[in-house]
Amino acid sequence: MPMPSLRDQLLTAGLETLHRRGFNATSVQDITDAAGAPKGSFYNHFESKEALALEALERYLENARPRRAILADARLPPLRRLRRYFERNVEAAVDAGLEPGCLLGNFGNELSSQSTPIRKRVDQAFSVWTDAVAAVIGRAQQEGAIESRLPPKALAEFVIQSWEGALLRAKVAKSRAPLDLFLKLTFSKILA
Amino acid sequence: MPMPSLRDQLLTAGLETLHRRGFNATSVQDITDAAGAPKGSFYNHFESKEALALEALERYLENARPRRAILADARLPPLRRLRRYFERNVEAAVDAGLEPGCLLGNFGNELSSQSTPIRKRVDQAFSVWTDAVAAVIGRAQQEGAIESRLPPKALAEFVIQSWEGALLRAKVAKSRAPLDLFLKLTFSKILA
Repeated sequence: MPMPSLRDQLLTAGLETLHRRGFNATSVQDITDAAGAPKGSFYNHFESKEALALEALERYLENARPRRAILADARLPPLRRLRRYFERNVEAAVDAGLEPGCLLGNFGNELSSQSTPIRKRVDQAFSVWTDAVAAVIGRAQQEGAIESRLPPKALAEFVIQSWEGALLRAKVAKSRAPLDLFLKLTFSKILA
Repeated sequence: MPMPSLRDQLLTAGLETLHRRGFNATSVQDITDAAGAPKGSFYNHFESKEALALEALERYLENARPRRAILADARLPPLRRLRRYFERNVEAAVDAGLEPGCLLGNFGNELSSQSTPIRKRVDQAFSVWTDAVAAVIGRAQQEGAIESRLPPKALAEFVIQSWEGALLRAKVAKSRAPLDLFLKLTFSKILA
């Protein structure tokens, strides 16, 4: 395996730092320090902290792909896939110590009024995620595993909104209880 | 009415600026500029930006009290109170242009890993809010207006988490649709 390029090291360190500390609390020097790179090197590779944040967001979405593949795993019935997918999301959030939360939620919260490119990319990522969840909800409705006749997209929007809120509440409470409550009510009330 | 003191002007401008732009994107000078006060005056009145943020949070919670009083309005049946309360929250978020969102959510998201006093105060405020909502849910269950036998506190936690997530999604989408969806599913599925 080739050595990661300095650019790649900056991107990896940038994603980690921005995810853990937020955009405005992270300086370019925090990122170069975390990457073990000289501060002056940053602008050889990225036009701005915002430009790096946009690329870090793409990396984050790529990293989320293997887990999201559970949604398309045809060996499991659709409702079982949905539950497993969100159970894995809970485990991952707990394993990460609850503080980092979801980068979409963090950037969306902190930067929607400050960066139009980041707001739009986050919005689009939420839409793609919603469509993926909605497709499985639609299948589960066809199979009769979900009785609700509400449009799959509305149910998916609500589930993802509620997931983001649960992550926020878990971060503040330093407790996984909001995430477990999300699982319980989502699968007993919303997707029922 | 007496002139507001300089301290009070700084607090008012601080709440407005921190709510709109976030903690780390706001400098002490942004606050003194917004208050029309000399920069040097800030530290005569507040020990730090964090100290002002904690007082701004108290002011925010006081400002939220009149709306929250709807929850205790005995002239309305409990479920009707809950719906009116959240409808008013939706209207207020829309009137504010969706961007500011909820200060508890914003501070909780941005500062939970950076300021223990702010995280704890936000956590406590969420708990008090949850108890107020849970009390009304309990009444509605006693009256038979909510059939769910889940503990009122769990239902209240979920509703507030989902509200926070809906506000975040609305901010990112620049659309009230996530808030309307919150109302629809909360009152047709969760509090049903």
